[in-house]
Amino acid sequence: METLQGMKRDHHCGELRKENVGTDVVLCGWVARRRDHGGLIFVDMRDRSGFVQVVFDEASMEGGTFHKAESLRNEFCIAVRGTVRARSEETVNSNIETGEIEVVCTELRILNKAKTPPFYIQDGIDVDEMLRLKYRYLDLRRPEMQKNIILRHRVTKIMRDYFDRNGFLEIETPMLCKSTPEGARDFLVPSRVNPGEFYALPQSPQIFKQILQVAGFEKYFQIVRCFRDEDLRADRQPEFTQLDIEMSFKSQEEILTIMEEMVKELFEKSIGAKVETPFERMDWDTAMDKYGSDKPDLRFDMPLMDISEYVKGSDFKVFNAVIENGGMVKCIKVDGYADIPRRRLDELVKFVQIYGAKGLAWIQYSEEGVKSPFKKFYSDETFAKIAEATGAKTGDLLLVVADKRLVVDTALGQLRLEMGKERNLIDPDKLRFLWVVDFPMYEWSDEEKRWKAMHHPFTAPRDEDIEFLATDPGRVKANAYDMVLNGVEIGGGSLRIYNAELQEKVFESLGLTQEEAHAKFGFMMDAFQYGTPPHGGLAFGLDRLVMIMAKRASIRDVIAFPKTQSARDVMSNAPSEVDDKQLRELSIRTAVKKKEAKQEENA
Amino acid sequence: METLQGMKRDHHCGELRKENVGTDVVLCGWVARRRDHGGLIFVDMRDRSGFVQVVFDEASMEGGTFHKAESLRNEFCIAVRGTVRARSEETVNSNIETGEIEVVCTELRILNKAKTPPFYIQDGIDVDEMLRLKYRYLDLRRPEMQKNIILRHRVTKIMRDYFDRNGFLEIETPMLCKSTPEGARDFLVPSRVNPGEFYALPQSPQIFKQILQVAGFEKYFQIVRCFRDEDLRADRQPEFTQLDIEMSFKSQEEILTIMEEMVKELFEKSIGAKVETPFERMDWDTAMDKYGSDKPDLRFDMPLMDISEYVKGSDFKVFNAVIENGGMVKCIKVDGYADIPRRRLDELVKFVQIYGAKGLAWIQYSEEGVKSPFKKFYSDETFAKIAEATGAKTGDLLLVVADKRLVVDTALGQLRLEMGKERNLIDPDKLRFLWVVDFPMYEWSDEEKRWKAMHHPFTAPRDEDIEFLATDPGRVKANAYDMVLNGVEIGGGSLRIYNAELQEKVFESLGLTQEEAHAKFGFMMDAFQYGTPPHGGLAFGLDRLVMIMAKRASIRDVIAFPKTQSARDVMSNAPSEVDDKQLRELSIRTAVKKKEAKQEENA
Repeated sequence: METLQGMKRDHHCGELRKENVGTDVVLCGWVARRRDHGGLIFVDMRDRSGFVQVVFDEASMEGGTFHKAESLRNEFCIAVRGTVRARSEETVNSNIETGEIEVVCTELRILNKAKTPPFYIQDGIDVDEMLRLKYRYLDLRRPEMQKNIILRHRVTKIMRDYFDRNGFLEIETPMLCKSTPEGARDFLVPSRVNPGEFYALPQSPQIFKQILQVAGFEKYFQIVRCFRDEDLRADRQPEFTQLDIEMSFKSQEEILTIMEEMVKELFEKSIGAKVETPFERMDWDTAMDKYGSDKPDLRFDMPLMDISEYVKGSDFKVFNAVIENGGMVKCIKVDGYADIPRRRLDELVKFVQIYGAKGLAWIQYSEEGVKSPFKKFYSDETFAKIAEATGAKTGDLLLVVADKRLVVDTALGQLRLEMGKERNLIDPDKLRFLWVVDFPMYEWSDEEKRWKAMHHPFTAPRDEDIEFLATDPGRVKANAYDMVLNGVEIGGGSLRIYNAELQEKVFESLGLTQEEAHAKFGFMMDAFQYGTPPHGGLAFGLDRLVMIMAKRASIRDVIAFPKTQSARDVMSNAPSEVDDKQLRELSIRTAVKKKEAKQEENA
Repeated sequence: METLQGMKRDHHCGELRKENVGTDVVLCGWVARRRDHGGLIFVDMRDRSGFVQVVFDEASMEGGTFHKAESLRNEFCIAVRGTVRARSEETVNSNIETGEIEVVCTELRILNKAKTPPFYIQDGIDVDEMLRLKYRYLDLRRPEMQKNIILRHRVTKIMRDYFDRNGFLEIETPMLCKSTPEGARDFLVPSRVNPGEFYALPQSPQIFKQILQVAGFEKYFQIVRCFRDEDLRADRQPEFTQLDIEMSFKSQEEILTIMEEMVKELFEKSIGAKVETPFERMDWDTAMDKYGSDKPDLRFDMPLMDISEYVKGSDFKVFNAVIENGGMVKCIKVDGYADIPRRRLDELVKFVQIYGAKGLAWIQYSEEGVKSPFKKFYSDETFAKIAEATGAKTGDLLLVVADKRLVVDTALGQLRLEMGKERNLIDPDKLRFLWVVDFPMYEWSDEEKRWKAMHHPFTAPRDEDIEFLATDPGRVKANAYDMVLNGVEIGGGSLRIYNAELQEKVFESLGLTQEEAHAKFGFMMDAFQYGTPPHGGLAFGLDRLVMIMAKRASIRDVIAFPKTQSARDVMSNAPSEVDDKQLRELSIRTAVKKKEAKQEENA
């Protein structure tokens, strides 16, 4: 193996163009592909910037160098000195940006050899993801993965520039925090110096960023690692990155404006996408009622429509019973889909059942007249009225669900998305942002038989709803807001409580005793005694945002070293067993026997 | 308490100037001080930008508002609408930037009240640090603390701008890593999903940043949290922040240049300090020999000088014995200090003993002639020769240590710093940067009776020294470098090994068996099989760097929420005991009884 001694890289592979013809260059990079052609060897050489073709010509070069070139294999790390020359017209390759030129090598150094990689270092490979993760250092060499990581860098840089320019300070908050088992499960860190005690890794810097407002920093942001020890889904990681923001003395509307301007700048500068501001604001009630979702995808319309008034009081007992029990009958209209196959309708019945609906009905306004499972219970006039009310024309399909409001909305909301995809109504290049506002303060937990905070217990209720905190929690709306993009929640936040008494009332309504509240958040309620400013903020999930921007299906594709579904790093093999000495020093024991010990037992 | 409803802050307190006279403004902030003067109330109002004087005039304002102003106390959070007016000449306050104007209040809102803070919210308070940490949200309101945190933000922003502009990518590496108990002690995180297994929090992203080079990212940086579970000293924290850098295809000299240009830009842009580049390069041997330190403070000279040749072979057994045993006699010259009090000399004898020297001797070239404890053993000619060799003139003092090289250098190096301070030779405003290069690869651990890596086991030995790896480790120099500022190491790094066989050899020389090396770093040695580029990098301790830039004595003053010496956050009370349920879920038990349980036992 050779060194770079005496050679200094002065160009990058992917940047060479016709203008460079005649220039002597030194390149460093990897062999992406090699082709031999008589006394010529062609190497596609790759670095972070892209590819260039390097030519080794037996006729015109020193024998030793050509011989060396013959030993090149894929992924060898090399340095090349050579001259840029124009390719002949018939050999120009318009597929790559450097396709008009090639580099004629005069000196070659092999900096490192390479074994044959376990998969091709190229885009669009069809390889088990576990293999990609195990050889992440090779997977990340693939241009599409490099592009993702570079985009992620650009995204955070643009965010930081924006917030810095707007007077925000990036302030670091601790990673070794206090465990406050609300919300999700904490990762714990045993303390050696304080035996029997534990730190928790932060689920978010929520409390610290509020404390920074008490401390008078006024405008805070941070791009920060957060941790949740929950069972993993496709788009979740035990550690994830958050853009975290908090500010004082700002109204909700001012906060939303600052954020949408950030997003506008971000999308324009990083992926060249134009974003219109201000975003639409939609209250939570409307979002649920009209789209059956608190994160509606507005790239297509297809609203949920209430047809209870047309179908009530008939002989059809199903609808009657629902309506009498306070439920409702709603539908969505799928244009031009009256000829939906019967088999597909049966599948859709099963589909809505996943979301708790007992069944699905429909009205097909077909050329041959109305088809519907409940046709015999209603007059033609009723179906005409429904058509008028929903705007259904001949050829259109109504899908109908009858149930309690939440079930109807949820099931039809999901069905709406399904139909949007099935009928090709969603333009993948469209960016439809909106703010969903006025979230309920609480949601009822059937599991725990108590009200839980929909966002978190520091969210401020609307002033006009404070009187209902104790008497009618379900009615209380919060000054909370989510930013939604194409049906995905990309950020959310709220104005916060900044008054110790109100904070205590909210803890109380969540079933925390004064003692519990003080044990967990006492210092925060103390802090509220010293002139806390009105404040609010929000947080964006960075991984998911970059995933959407990069048009990838998995957040693992935009994280350099992600964990698997079982929370493992399969490259370095973490987590792993540790020495007993380490546990002893931390004053903990594991309740699991060591693998070696277990094997001995089995032996 | 009132809200901001209908009022929109449009100016900041500290930015108002004479040019604003006549402007109507809305300010938000805190009451820093209130003085009453007949029918006038003066409030020094503070926000992040600074202070301004607000006047409440009973004669000209609505009675309710004046009454409200009378209720104001320190640290109340308020909003003020008013008009900027010029102060009369005799009331101009040139101590504050807004001292030429004041704001005449027309509307006051009390956004939040405040109890009396436990200490004054002002600079230079003399308060127990534990109290400051417990009420960190108040401590951080003090202007000097705000300045530190704002400086820290500026520093990281300038760093990120610099590296982005120079083609570096900020890439996030995992916090939940594999435990590799080399170096310092790991913080461990039990895995719930993988019972009996543990993650470790990273001591640095060393391995990941090298893997990113294998992955072809070429230029990486990150400002990243790191963790070391070591007993804390004044300038150590269990979690700390590091500027972490790694790059491929660069020579050591290129790496040093990129870093010194960064530092130059950083100091100029953040604190307006001019920095000369390139920095002096000094090899480790020279630094130790000449200044007795691997991080010499070059703000003053006073080199260590070897006078062995003049004192050997005399009747003075102490010197003779040392020299015969391979040791040496060295001195430093303290100009104009021949009249050092005898008492002080006795103290200095004790001082050098801290650093392992058995004693201290001296030569005073006083007006009355030479004074020295070893005068009778040498001729006047010898003392004259020593004076000539060291440049000592009448009035100068030589302080002399005789011992093994390392002891002499260390003791005299420390004595040099002591004399530098004592003789006022150190200009506190001077910035003296240098690179110390060519560090030894290994240092001998008397404790463990083995060679240990001076930097870490991934450091590349110099090519010409590789042959001595197995036979004479002490002789091997590494391609390692430290950046030193005013006698403090602020950053350090090395070129790395990028060849699997050499890496194995180094592991071997450190006493790791092949099995151990593969269990810990197998994936890295695998990675080295796939065309790893030559690479190197370094890391800067951000906390310490900002501390120096802010001219503070403790890193806790530049960290928003630091831990105490016993690794506690005394504000939120972390670490703390946790629920048994949490431990059960993690399959661990604590070896410590719960405090409540202990109390019951005692009851």
